[in-house]
Amino acid sequence: MQLLLGSGGFSGEKRKEQLVAAMRDFFGDIQKILFVPYAGHDHEGYVKRMHEVGFDAGYELVGIHRFEDQQKAVKDCDGIYVGGGNSFRLVHELHRHGLVTAIRDAVRSGLPYMGVSAGTNVACPTMQTTNDMPILEPSSFASMGLVPFQINAHYYPGKLWFQRDGEYQPHFGESRQDRIREFHECQPTPVVGLEEGGILRQNREQWHLSLARAFLFLPGQAEEELPQGVDIAGRLCR
Amino acid sequence: MQLLLGSGGFSGEKRKEQLVAAMRDFFGDIQKILFVPYAGHDHEGYVKRMHEVGFDAGYELVGIHRFEDQQKAVKDCDGIYVGGGNSFRLVHELHRHGLVTAIRDAVRSGLPYMGVSAGTNVACPTMQTTNDMPILEPSSFASMGLVPFQINAHYYPGKLWFQRDGEYQPHFGESRQDRIREFHECQPTPVVGLEEGGILRQNREQWHLSLARAFLFLPGQAEEELPQGVDIAGRLCR
Repeated sequence: MQLLLGSGGFSGEKRKEQLVAAMRDFFGDIQKILFVPYAGHDHEGYVKRMHEVGFDAGYELVGIHRFEDQQKAVKDCDGIYVGGGNSFRLVHELHRHGLVTAIRDAVRSGLPYMGVSAGTNVACPTMQTTNDMPILEPSSFASMGLVPFQINAHYYPGKLWFQRDGEYQPHFGESRQDRIREFHECQPTPVVGLEEGGILRQNREQWHLSLARAFLFLPGQAEEELPQGVDIAGRLCR
Repeated sequence: MQLLLGSGGFSGEKRKEQLVAAMRDFFGDIQKILFVPYAGHDHEGYVKRMHEVGFDAGYELVGIHRFEDQQKAVKDCDGIYVGGGNSFRLVHELHRHGLVTAIRDAVRSGLPYMGVSAGTNVACPTMQTTNDMPILEPSSFASMGLVPFQINAHYYPGKLWFQRDGEYQPHFGESRQDRIREFHECQPTPVVGLEEGGILRQNREQWHLSLARAFLFLPGQAEEELPQGVDIAGRLCR
């Protein structure tokens, strides 16, 4: 399999350039990429905006919502990119269009899969490590299971602050460590907390982390930082 | 109906004292309160901790998990308190034990209901304005519908920051305003963003906000701050 899984938070010129370079390296010299905008509300607007801000990396992004037979569109394409937004909306639409199985089968047969944020989340066995609000009730939380672990996108360590009258105020909601511990109270699948701007790439049997930190959470254990620039398949796929 | 709905984030002595005073004023001179610890993992430990940290406000909290017939326990009690934690776990358990209807009926007949965080969330028509991770798949997102609007607990305005090496770093995930706008792309129910430490109290036909700010979100409109110290039933229950 060939997977490029981005955390999200590719804000600012530097992170944008890094994502575009990773995307060019990943998809190579194909022309068109099938783009899945279902994590967003306005599908046409989403595809247009991706081109406008340069997140197309010079490829033609073709919105899957335009196809009558969307499962055939997956079979026929040279690369697929599932964009970010709301994971509940994305999973709801993927199930509704029969795309969970269609995309899984195509990717397992070699189709390069890129996901960012919600698109990374649905590559996991379930969408249950999302940070999103459950604005829609999908028929199932089950996702594509392209990887044998969960990813928590937009990960950050510790607690959060918001601003009031120009001062930083502590927020007392659960940290990501708290949330992942709660997940592990219910199921044992390993979770990778991937910081914003970071990428996990699978190339056949190898896995590489780049551009930001990531932490591996196993049930009942303290998280461990994953190394960058070396194959970490042995850590991720036990 | 008599409802006391807290946002959560009752951290620090001052906020704790405020919550305890509001709770004494709300429940009055009853002795025992039926406590629902299902948003947490360890039910016995949760009840014990509530007593240890003084969040019992001097009442005896009786865990509902100890009863063979939990629906009867709801009918028999003088007051009910649903604690915070993970809303997906809470809703999953409430449905599993047939408590959504049992609690709704009892509260509509006059039983005083207190909720904090997840316990506030489940008083709404659905749990779909939660901030929690979907660690469990409940049979339905439908909740008690004690109030005709949604509450987003632990609300904060604007964006968030985390700390790295002692410096504040911006986080690029969706703000609460973004998330509530996404909710309104799917359904029109009004949403109240209730800041940490804040309480919404219903006493028959009247609604009062106290101890923190809250903002009312209607579909397609900018949010408006709700006033404190006056009856806001006309704003909330249209």
